Amino acid sequence: MSKERQHFLDWFLYPRNIAVVGASNNPSRPNFYLFKNLIGLGFQGKVYPVNPTTNAVQGVRAYSRLRDIEEAIDLVICAVATPMTLDVIRDCVQKKVKGVVIVSGGFSEIGQEGAKLQDEIAHLLKESGIKATGPNTLGPINTSNNLAVSFHPIEQLRRGTLSFIFQSGLYEPRLSWLFSDFHLGISKLMDLGNKMDVNETDALEYLASDPDTKTIAIHSENVKGDGRKFLQLLKETTKRKPVIILKSGRTPGGVKAAMSHTGSIVQGSDSVFDAALRQSGAIRAQGLEEFFNLAKAFAFLTPPDNNRILVATLPGGEGVIAADLCQQNGLSMAELSPETIGKLKPIFPAWEIRGNPFDLGVCREFHPPELTYSLLLDSVVSDENVDCVAVQLSAPGWASAEDITTPFCRVAEKGKPIAAWLAMAPGKANIITEKVEAKHIPVYTSAEAAIKGLSALYKYKVMQEQKV
Amino acid sequence: MSKERQHFLDWFLYPRNIAVVGASNNPSRPNFYLFKNLIGLGFQGKVYPVNPTTNAVQGVRAYSRLRDIEEAIDLVICAVATPMTLDVIRDCVQKKVKGVVIVSGGFSEIGQEGAKLQDEIAHLLKESGIKATGPNTLGPINTSNNLAVSFHPIEQLRRGTLSFIFQSGLYEPRLSWLFSDFHLGISKLMDLGNKMDVNETDALEYLASDPDTKTIAIHSENVKGDGRKFLQLLKETTKRKPVIILKSGRTPGGVKAAMSHTGSIVQGSDSVFDAALRQSGAIRAQGLEEFFNLAKAFAFLTPPDNNRILVATLPGGEGVIAADLCQQNGLSMAELSPETIGKLKPIFPAWEIRGNPFDLGVCREFHPPELTYSLLLDSVVSDENVDCVAVQLSAPGWASAEDITTPFCRVAEKGKPIAAWLAMAPGKANIITEKVEAKHIPVYTSAEAAIKGLSALYKYKVMQEQKV
Repeated sequence: MSKERQHFLDWFLYPRNIAVVGASNNPSRPNFYLFKNLIGLGFQGKVYPVNPTTNAVQGVRAYSRLRDIEEAIDLVICAVATPMTLDVIRDCVQKKVKGVVIVSGGFSEIGQEGAKLQDEIAHLLKESGIKATGPNTLGPINTSNNLAVSFHPIEQLRRGTLSFIFQSGLYEPRLSWLFSDFHLGISKLMDLGNKMDVNETDALEYLASDPDTKTIAIHSENVKGDGRKFLQLLKETTKRKPVIILKSGRTPGGVKAAMSHTGSIVQGSDSVFDAALRQSGAIRAQGLEEFFNLAKAFAFLTPPDNNRILVATLPGGEGVIAADLCQQNGLSMAELSPETIGKLKPIFPAWEIRGNPFDLGVCREFHPPELTYSLLLDSVVSDENVDCVAVQLSAPGWASAEDITTPFCRVAEKGKPIAAWLAMAPGKANIITEKVEAKHIPVYTSAEAAIKGLSALYKYKVMQEQKV
Repeated sequence: MSKERQHFLDWFLYPRNIAVVGASNNPSRPNFYLFKNLIGLGFQGKVYPVNPTTNAVQGVRAYSRLRDIEEAIDLVICAVATPMTLDVIRDCVQKKVKGVVIVSGGFSEIGQEGAKLQDEIAHLLKESGIKATGPNTLGPINTSNNLAVSFHPIEQLRRGTLSFIFQSGLYEPRLSWLFSDFHLGISKLMDLGNKMDVNETDALEYLASDPDTKTIAIHSENVKGDGRKFLQLLKETTKRKPVIILKSGRTPGGVKAAMSHTGSIVQGSDSVFDAALRQSGAIRAQGLEEFFNLAKAFAFLTPPDNNRILVATLPGGEGVIAADLCQQNGLSMAELSPETIGKLKPIFPAWEIRGNPFDLGVCREFHPPELTYSLLLDSVVSDENVDCVAVQLSAPGWASAEDITTPFCRVAEKGKPIAAWLAMAPGKANIITEKVEAKHIPVYTSAEAAIKGLSALYKYKVMQEQKV
């Protein structure tokens, strides 16, 4: 662990060792996986289980209390019953640890009594200069040293350049998906919970200068502390890295729910926040699916030079839907060059068809799918009138997976942003999605997602040019 | 075939026999499946292949020309090259067939020349009193007699009470999904293409009085013929059956694409059409995914008595998102009765948590998932303050599929509308989705889809009450 620790969050993401207070031997308890994931994934550092009721946790010698550990401790995962948390924090102070993740809930989010206990803990830690995430949190995750703190069994990590900041746990039941069928590696993930100490400004500051992070995705229920400082930092960051934000607590009902979820007090109206976000150059996701969809678009693709899109669909009727979506999202239908039209003619039916939206289905009535996809993709990626491409993927059955994926894989490296979507249930298309996404062409479940992804990339580019 | 034919579309959906002109022996050609599906699925009537180049198609004696068939023919599927279509139509006239499906494209959608040929065909058929769907179409499908006209291999049909009207082919690459992982049976499907003759008013009129059809879903690019008649019929129909409409060609770009897709001339602005639809009591889907999602909600569930919803999520943060979505979609967060809160206490953590949105995740930190889901579902379905329920399904792994699905299956028959959504990739959750949807609880891929489904049901109920 030669990493030089320049930011206090380095102690959370690159700790030399971790003590898990509350580590369990019982596989039916979530605390089992808090420890198991660290061992099982091969965290590159020492791990100490702390549990007063046993000599060993999952085969590793256990300590009764934190202070019994001889070595100095960098990071403590504190996962004990709420009333016992204060005791653990006192031990942290005595051990002079660098950071604590307070996993337990039952603090400011439950009202006055919990808030009082949380304040007491905050006071103790501040006095001793110990930083803390939570309470009511999990994480962090860092794929570069196999660090993953989670209640869920994680079979594997997958390295990448996308990093996340979450308010609290939204990713938890989606972790195995994130590290498998999402097909997009992650660099770091930070979870903030009640934000008693570490807040999104800290986390964003850290990721903004993290060389492993190229794209940042933030889920937040409120902005804690100095809102202007956060927005200023966001503005600086988006000049260099795209930032996608999912902000919940948008309606009075959501605000009330946020209060009892993480004790978040949401200030100001959602429309004011929305306008501020737009000014900062961040991309706002309208829902959780869109949040992950946009993260993938930005992590996989470079923004198009301009807004002229070529759309190709299997049923012609989907081309009409796609054309509507392009116009609604600020993209214009590219006019194919005469050369491209010439190249495409061999796959036209007996009559002249429209080039954009391109009707793949009618061509496939007369020509094999591999030829249809190849001619189309090869010609449009070299057409200067086309800035980006959205193409529907055929269902396997009528064509082999290979016939469908080969043309995509060949043109992926040409640098023109291409987004694809499926004409079938995603479960049936795992092989196709995996192959195409391995070449950094995102595969979505609808034309809408593909077109919105390309549109967001284009808007980001325009915004960046305006900033210069 | 004892069915009495009262409407001319009975000849398309309940023909005694079908002649497929252009039936092919070559499995790489779509025309292969036009014939294969009828034989393979066991269409309950005779099927005659017509193909001048062979003695037999797929083992069935072939006829050189339509007029060579001795028997009188009810329905002709005409799938020959565009210029040869007129000849086939002349044979249809001579044979006095009842109906024709004109599969080929290359007519009004390609411009003046194609329109001229289409008009000639229309004139010939009209003179002879023969009805036609298309050109540029497929279908029909009727699961009650195993009739399915499609370019795609269909392994099985699945009977149900939902019927579709499509403008052209949007369902084609999704057919295997519709009859398998969609988990919702279909009664009838009609495709209209260029609507040279049969239009959506005819099709709606037919389905409105079809006893097997309980829910109608329509995709349309334009309304052909008398728009007021269509809207009046829609208004009458929605009193008895919910009608979901996906209308594309909403923007100038979409309108242009519709013109070259099915020769559709979209008249009037989209907002005028939108207002007219609302007045008619139809439910407008905003996209293709929502179209299928709403169809499932209406086919599976009965509308809630009022708009009070209980939401339960695994990560508490998703509860905040869900509360926002409820408010944005006109649902109000139910206040659980003291009895329900009392019943739920055993699964609360050490502190009092909020009942709605209900944090399943925090309960599952301390209690097994089966107990958590059971107590929640059992108590809320009998709570008079709750009109409908949206619940997130756990990922398998931490809990068995059985533990997750059993409580849902038990309460499904209580009649309170419940919609679920997954916290995982749909592919991984096939068993869970299948079991839960078998009990008519729709399982979606996002909280948004579940909440929008319940919201649409509630709005339909309000609209129906206003009509009385």
